[in-house]
Amino acid sequence: MLKFRINKNAFLANLHSAQRAINGKVVVPVLNFVKINVTKEGLTLTGSNGRITIETFLSVTDEDAGMIIDEVGGILLEVSFLSKVLSELPNYEFSLEVLENNIVNIKSGQTDLHLNGMNVQDYPKLKTPSQEKVLKLPVSFFKQVIKETNFAASTQESRPILTGVCLKVEDNKTLVSTATDAHRMSRRTVELPHSVENFQVTIPSKNLKEFINVFNKDDEEFEMFFSSTQVLFKTKNVSLYTRLLDGSYPDTERIIPKNFKTTAVFDSQGLRKVMNRAALLTSVDNSRSIQLELKRDTITLYGNSPEIGNLKEDIEFDKKEGDDLVISFNPIFMSESLAAFGEGKIEIKFTESFRPFVMSLESKGDQFIQLITPIRTNVAMPKK
Amino acid sequence: MLKFRINKNAFLANLHSAQRAINGKVVVPVLNFVKINVTKEGLTLTGSNGRITIETFLSVTDEDAGMIIDEVGGILLEVSFLSKVLSELPNYEFSLEVLENNIVNIKSGQTDLHLNGMNVQDYPKLKTPSQEKVLKLPVSFFKQVIKETNFAASTQESRPILTGVCLKVEDNKTLVSTATDAHRMSRRTVELPHSVENFQVTIPSKNLKEFINVFNKDDEEFEMFFSSTQVLFKTKNVSLYTRLLDGSYPDTERIIPKNFKTTAVFDSQGLRKVMNRAALLTSVDNSRSIQLELKRDTITLYGNSPEIGNLKEDIEFDKKEGDDLVISFNPIFMSESLAAFGEGKIEIKFTESFRPFVMSLESKGDQFIQLITPIRTNVAMPKK
Repeated sequence: MLKFRINKNAFLANLHSAQRAINGKVVVPVLNFVKINVTKEGLTLTGSNGRITIETFLSVTDEDAGMIIDEVGGILLEVSFLSKVLSELPNYEFSLEVLENNIVNIKSGQTDLHLNGMNVQDYPKLKTPSQEKVLKLPVSFFKQVIKETNFAASTQESRPILTGVCLKVEDNKTLVSTATDAHRMSRRTVELPHSVENFQVTIPSKNLKEFINVFNKDDEEFEMFFSSTQVLFKTKNVSLYTRLLDGSYPDTERIIPKNFKTTAVFDSQGLRKVMNRAALLTSVDNSRSIQLELKRDTITLYGNSPEIGNLKEDIEFDKKEGDDLVISFNPIFMSESLAAFGEGKIEIKFTESFRPFVMSLESKGDQFIQLITPIRTNVAMPKK
Repeated sequence: MLKFRINKNAFLANLHSAQRAINGKVVVPVLNFVKINVTKEGLTLTGSNGRITIETFLSVTDEDAGMIIDEVGGILLEVSFLSKVLSELPNYEFSLEVLENNIVNIKSGQTDLHLNGMNVQDYPKLKTPSQEKVLKLPVSFFKQVIKETNFAASTQESRPILTGVCLKVEDNKTLVSTATDAHRMSRRTVELPHSVENFQVTIPSKNLKEFINVFNKDDEEFEMFFSSTQVLFKTKNVSLYTRLLDGSYPDTERIIPKNFKTTAVFDSQGLRKVMNRAALLTSVDNSRSIQLELKRDTITLYGNSPEIGNLKEDIEFDKKEGDDLVISFNPIFMSESLAAFGEGKIEIKFTESFRPFVMSLESKGDQFIQLITPIRTNVAMPKK
């Protein structure tokens, strides 16, 4: 039966990745277990909550892992205890051996531990997507796209499709990533380094976020495989399976205004700090709305909380053109947008008080667009 | 009315100290407010939950604070919002001015904020202890004594007196700090640098813990004043008032065994790591008990959790004398004891399986004693 010796930290690094798919809230008890599988090639650890599965592979030739395999095989172990107890082991390495009745013996230094495991056959089978449509990209490239759009997805289950990020390839070479919660939207367009078949899928944003955590070698390339119900992201050592969301993603193009009456340019991170201060005030009583007043020579923010008090701030801007305007919106949305844009000059284009406005980073133009819907408010803002 | 200008970070550092006494769970709304009081001498901030009060003073001569006082006075402001919004201010300094109706105007850079304050007269009056009995000690000296005993106090309100730490001066020069939760006890004896009147008080351990957080200049001296109901710890810039616990502290001397049948010496931190591993196992199903078996040539720890599995560990020791013994106890208690002892050689003296055992650090002898009561257990430990 399974017996091997391995470097503790190498094992733990892989375990922590696989563990990210295990959330402890599952109805199926076996999904609180990690699957440990050892072949002549090396060690595979699998964690899953049924909606996302993360698999890590450690090669027997990996020198840091220093794996010595006496006998191949598999076992299931409860992941949270395993992870904690391994961290506390006295030695830099440990041995793991499966005994009778799925009892697992772990030895390290003077420590001799027996854990109750489960038969590896009891683990649910993974359906592997067909390998027909393949996208191949640098990890860092895709991480950036995720960070730029993922945050705008909905966290409400009322419209499940909006909890996902829509990934679409057009013209065999343009990848468009879109997320919206119906109140704001982020859309990033990037040219692919090589031509691929067109496709469109909607991936749960929570699972997509795990891509950032699990693929930690930014200089690697990953491959993406599809089936009709799931997608697999895969590098040499890590596989992430996620289900796809059913239903068709809404057409977001038609909600983007094309004509504007007022435009202004700001320093992105300076504006973000203003929004963060305003967000403090509005989050207290959940009014979540501030008012921006664009006049000939000034742009002023007003925030008001009946409980706490009120805020007035003259905002520095680089450029302003067009009509005067008063508009109300959630400052947290704008702060999150600006965080996604990063450093640079931000252009905001307004149509009118009750129409969505469009934000873009000057350096990226319409390749990176964000949209925020104003809040219709009757709250009179105090003006000093 | 009150008007001043001050360095933001200097103000915030003092606010964060005063805020430690405010826990947001009070029935009296005014105790969610910080009291801001400015005299010609400087700024005093006061936070309180009724059981502990922390007051900080910032002198007008303090160069880092750069305080400019236009008008003296006082105001109350809700502390958690104030603390958050000040952290987000754009400038290194801000001005604060009280307007009509307790409205407070805070300005910093382009930010212009109006907060709803409360009249300073509405703040509860502090009773200051008489200045009769005074103890004067270095901050670092007293912090160490707190750390060595405070953790052993009870967190259960069933015997309120045990939630405190008993501080006692004997023979005008010996300070004894004792804490116990009836299952374990820590007692630290230190010689005072100067002679004082004898006293005995019991201070809530939670409040004593704040001493460590609030007095952050280890090289300062503090003074301690008493009344029959409270105690005041005071340095030049910080005052901490805490109520005392009613009732007489139990006589702990009589529970310390005087005759021993088995003694062993361990490396403190090595033993602690063993206990931490064992604690992981026992904390899963709240059995909270491990078994230590002392034989002629070996000392072995056994832990067992029906759910998870079992642990066996041969423990390294420096010396062992006396009878063979099997004893069960909570490994978390021993881990916490060893953390309080710090580095060094630990002597453990056992009487018998169902009697408390005594631990001491070789370098400190009976000046620092800890005691743990064994657990009577019928759980058969598996032995391999």
